[in-house]
Amino acid sequence: MDTLDELCVNTLRFLAVDQVEQAKSGHPGLPLGAAPMAYVLWDRFLRHNPDNPKWFNRDRFILSAGHGSALLYALLHMTGYDLGLDELKRFRQWGSKTPGHPEHGVTPGVEATTGPLGQGFAMGVGMAVAEAHLAAVYNRPGHDVVGHHTYAIVSDGDLMEGISHEAASLAGTLGLGKLVYLYDDNHISIEGDTKIAFTEDVGTRFKGYGWQVLHVDDGNDLQAVEKAIEEARRETARPSLIIVRTHIGYGSPKQDSASAHGEPLGPDAARATKQALGWPIEPAFHVPEEARTHMAKARERGAKLEEEWNKGLEAYAAEFADDAAALKDAIAGRLPEGWESAVPVFTPADGPQATRNSSGSVLNALAPKVTMLMGGSADLAPSTKTLIKGSEGFSKEHREGRNMHFGVRELAMTAAVNGMALHGGLIPYGATFLIFSDYARPAIRLGALMGVHSIYVFTHDSIGVGEDGPTHQPISQVMSLRTIPDLLVFRPADANETAEAWRAALAAGRPVAMALTRQKLPVMDTKIYPVREGFARGAYILAEAEGGSPDIVIVATGSEVHLALGARDALSQSGVKARVVSAPCWELLLEQTPEYRAEVLPADVPKLAVEAGCTLGWGDLVGTDGGVVGLARFGASAPGKEVMAKLGFTVENVVAHAMALLKK
Amino acid sequence: MDTLDELCVNTLRFLAVDQVEQAKSGHPGLPLGAAPMAYVLWDRFLRHNPDNPKWFNRDRFILSAGHGSALLYALLHMTGYDLGLDELKRFRQWGSKTPGHPEHGVTPGVEATTGPLGQGFAMGVGMAVAEAHLAAVYNRPGHDVVGHHTYAIVSDGDLMEGISHEAASLAGTLGLGKLVYLYDDNHISIEGDTKIAFTEDVGTRFKGYGWQVLHVDDGNDLQAVEKAIEEARRETARPSLIIVRTHIGYGSPKQDSASAHGEPLGPDAARATKQALGWPIEPAFHVPEEARTHMAKARERGAKLEEEWNKGLEAYAAEFADDAAALKDAIAGRLPEGWESAVPVFTPADGPQATRNSSGSVLNALAPKVTMLMGGSADLAPSTKTLIKGSEGFSKEHREGRNMHFGVRELAMTAAVNGMALHGGLIPYGATFLIFSDYARPAIRLGALMGVHSIYVFTHDSIGVGEDGPTHQPISQVMSLRTIPDLLVFRPADANETAEAWRAALAAGRPVAMALTRQKLPVMDTKIYPVREGFARGAYILAEAEGGSPDIVIVATGSEVHLALGARDALSQSGVKARVVSAPCWELLLEQTPEYRAEVLPADVPKLAVEAGCTLGWGDLVGTDGGVVGLARFGASAPGKEVMAKLGFTVENVVAHAMALLKK
Repeated sequence: MDTLDELCVNTLRFLAVDQVEQAKSGHPGLPLGAAPMAYVLWDRFLRHNPDNPKWFNRDRFILSAGHGSALLYALLHMTGYDLGLDELKRFRQWGSKTPGHPEHGVTPGVEATTGPLGQGFAMGVGMAVAEAHLAAVYNRPGHDVVGHHTYAIVSDGDLMEGISHEAASLAGTLGLGKLVYLYDDNHISIEGDTKIAFTEDVGTRFKGYGWQVLHVDDGNDLQAVEKAIEEARRETARPSLIIVRTHIGYGSPKQDSASAHGEPLGPDAARATKQALGWPIEPAFHVPEEARTHMAKARERGAKLEEEWNKGLEAYAAEFADDAAALKDAIAGRLPEGWESAVPVFTPADGPQATRNSSGSVLNALAPKVTMLMGGSADLAPSTKTLIKGSEGFSKEHREGRNMHFGVRELAMTAAVNGMALHGGLIPYGATFLIFSDYARPAIRLGALMGVHSIYVFTHDSIGVGEDGPTHQPISQVMSLRTIPDLLVFRPADANETAEAWRAALAAGRPVAMALTRQKLPVMDTKIYPVREGFARGAYILAEAEGGSPDIVIVATGSEVHLALGARDALSQSGVKARVVSAPCWELLLEQTPEYRAEVLPADVPKLAVEAGCTLGWGDLVGTDGGVVGLARFGASAPGKEVMAKLGFTVENVVAHAMALLKK
Repeated sequence: MDTLDELCVNTLRFLAVDQVEQAKSGHPGLPLGAAPMAYVLWDRFLRHNPDNPKWFNRDRFILSAGHGSALLYALLHMTGYDLGLDELKRFRQWGSKTPGHPEHGVTPGVEATTGPLGQGFAMGVGMAVAEAHLAAVYNRPGHDVVGHHTYAIVSDGDLMEGISHEAASLAGTLGLGKLVYLYDDNHISIEGDTKIAFTEDVGTRFKGYGWQVLHVDDGNDLQAVEKAIEEARRETARPSLIIVRTHIGYGSPKQDSASAHGEPLGPDAARATKQALGWPIEPAFHVPEEARTHMAKARERGAKLEEEWNKGLEAYAAEFADDAAALKDAIAGRLPEGWESAVPVFTPADGPQATRNSSGSVLNALAPKVTMLMGGSADLAPSTKTLIKGSEGFSKEHREGRNMHFGVRELAMTAAVNGMALHGGLIPYGATFLIFSDYARPAIRLGALMGVHSIYVFTHDSIGVGEDGPTHQPISQVMSLRTIPDLLVFRPADANETAEAWRAALAAGRPVAMALTRQKLPVMDTKIYPVREGFARGAYILAEAEGGSPDIVIVATGSEVHLALGARDALSQSGVKARVVSAPCWELLLEQTPEYRAEVLPADVPKLAVEAGCTLGWGDLVGTDGGVVGLARFGASAPGKEVMAKLGFTVENVVAHAMALLKK
């Protein structure tokens, strides 16, 4: 190793070690082993601008093995991001910019929140999709305004997780040539040698996916790493995996052992490691001036890169003014003016229709205007109704295509959608059946934690699915999505609430999940029902009790709103005045004033909830003295209407529950 | 094709087609293409006894592509299982034994509930693990009392799902030579040709996993299929994947098209298909006598196989009486007499200790006595404390090992655990951090739907996790597990509740999830606190208010029970009499009488819930006028105690909430 390079690599190593020692918590093993490859990538290849972490055309770098966060913080610090040594000293402390695992939005330069293994891998695939698509849409001969690589460091844990298979197979199919992943192949996982659980031949596996596979036999050989990355960059038709043999906890007494993975070295071993690698034991957080000077050159380079790009953009704008304006809007995530006028209004004559179909209509009404919309389904597009008509499938041949064919890969799809959202320039969506939101859940959660603008479309949203049976009938999914912080969960009651759901989703700037029906529902007349204003408040009085003073409030969502309306009519025959509240979004309701909530769901009136999902949770809205028409069991295989009826989702049963509640 | 074979294959095909036509719902495409391979497997190889679907030493067969259920029902019908034509005619109807996707427990001979893709693949791996382990434990020279194959038919959808990667890589590592999977390679998925999303070279990929890969170029070539299965069976050191090129919807006008996949052919196309394959158009559900006679021979063969095995077992019992008794207990799922005496009782002097540690102690106290216990962790055993001490890791070399090293594969682990439970002879468990229960969720749900006796151990159960930060801190997981029907969710408050959790889990005979702490908790004195009797009721009065008439009831779970106890003491200083209710299991509470519930959580006393998880759902127990000390946000990275304190989990804050509630 060249002395300066070695100095820089060791600076990264020991900044990481010292962070972990200071915090008495963290993962020193990966940084010690992977610092060389990270250094080569960041020093020789990565096109980024530390002074503007949001520069649009930067290369993306993801530390998919997020437990190695200390290494990433060291890289960001050394290359001049706004992340001082003081922050590194507050590693894993309350309010610091250096949390235990990298968090997008907390630390400048962290492209994605990682830690839950495999998701960084898949988010990178989404970023590469976004790059390829935007390049195809916006670049013009002589004007490559979009064009960058997406890099990641991935670990054995990432590659054991199923999502890595899904994402790698997808990336291979799509031929994402600008994806370059470095595999930190250190042969050690938490339970010991990887051979106890992971003897697969990773290279052969990735060749099976259609990736270029390269090998670096010694992770400390900077030249070999450099050569491999060069080779990876030369390959434009296939993604590349560089398998780099490393040693976890390199240089420490714990090298090549599981104990180097997830706990501090401890003062003695830290000292021994510094000695072994010729590093001063004191002070901690030592940064040699030469290393600082050298690595800080990233700022200069970055400023120049961005400046060049800005100039290129000006030239582009001069020639392609409309495209440039559209690209700038996309980069800023600005919706085109007047987009809301494209949101359709449905009339009862348009119905009955399944809200999945309504959703398809709304999406296709919006798509021509909102070109940022891009997405697809996990091999269920004909059922989820998420195809943008008139657009190609995104493929090797059709990078301009807006329809993603994600394959039967719900988790990778959702993480890739998050990656597309993180990339910027797009409002991405991913669709599957609601039941399979369980497969996607880890990525839905991470999307919520990152606050990205992803749209998750889930159809076939209840036992109304029918014949496919309990394996395919969601019972707990809607409620359990509601338990995820910072996620908006919409369950619209008809075509017009579905239109409002899309309107809200586009404007939300944060993640949204929609639950849509397979079965047809009547369309409510917006002249009678205050759908538009109501939806935005999360829950609203859809149909007031006669005379305005309800004997009972029936609160329902989605398909069951129509049961509630039917029950209201039936109850009025018995002289019972019922109010119907449609509650398409609990989270928006919670954002309203307590007064509004009390007005819609008054404390002193008995309340009955109706939702074709688990009863659990409705006590929050109707109280322990309220009633719930819900499910405390799995569904059953039979025609949808029959399943609904047998399990109590009939006007009669809602009325019976209402009457029983009133008698209490 | 031999005429009789052809007759049988076509019988299977058209029984499937007619089921779908009759139901006007279902998937004819797979049965038409895959019937030949299924027929060869069932006719020439499968060792089973249709008259006793529970014969322990049968080969296991899983239709991982569960949407092809009509084919499985045809196979079961034709080989003489208790599944009459009348049931096939009620395909996908209310109360039939022929639901839309195969359901274990509903239909005799259905080994596993499938449909959610990939899970059948992984459950089969679990079954093969169980077989290999039990064979190693119980077989003696000359006495192979356990020994069978596990077969599956898998589809492109199964192989796209990440779980197939996880399970295949694990199976390769473990060298499960008795696993033989047939891949129905029909090149079509719902969105069209698989090339739009799935161009991977499956064979190369599986070679990378260490599988033997065989090819059959023509799925209608019965001899080729037979030869391949023979070859697969000859390979004992590696699992085998047989890639069988088939044609979806074979023989129909929709052959090789996506429209053959998931909808009835329709009367015209069904007729055309029958004509094309030389089948009588009428009557539907036609079964030629020769085909019936031939396929029904499975009963004879099966009876003989079981009889031979019974004789073998007798001989074994004569020589190895104790082993035979233990094996019979294991087969019956009977816990050994007196096992409960092994459940430890902890004293305050044993504390404080993390409940994950308590769990490890209990597991290790039980393991020597309850040899059916077998399981492991998704590469987190040192953290989840789930190693059985003194036992080997289950591996190629140590089939007797009880410690599974599942690798970082939460979903495959959980499905494999379900497969082990389905196999019988074991009480399996799988462990990871609670946050990663999200990755495992689809299999947890399927475990609950099947009602299998799986134990899911989840540690690091709240923001108490600390430094690892919000990526690793579960907020919504406990509540969202509670939304899954038929799953017991335990969140024990200390070592003794943890002991009760294991006691209940072993006795449950149904799936259980446990949420355990990373951080230390005091041990409650069982002489003071009625933990034993209380736990079994799901929620119980842990500490009654002074004088027995509470001003307020504080209901808490897990680590927060100690906060509640602290708050009770503090409140009493202010003259407020508080009752503390520990609620380790909502589901068991719901199984109590309304009177008991009303006694524990009286309607007319203000109630405050304390749980370091989402607030959503607690309204069910405390009402809209109750209070909740919970979370409506993600956690944060900092030392666990600090995160707990900053986010309101202190005695002071519980007291403040209690006082505010009392003032309302």
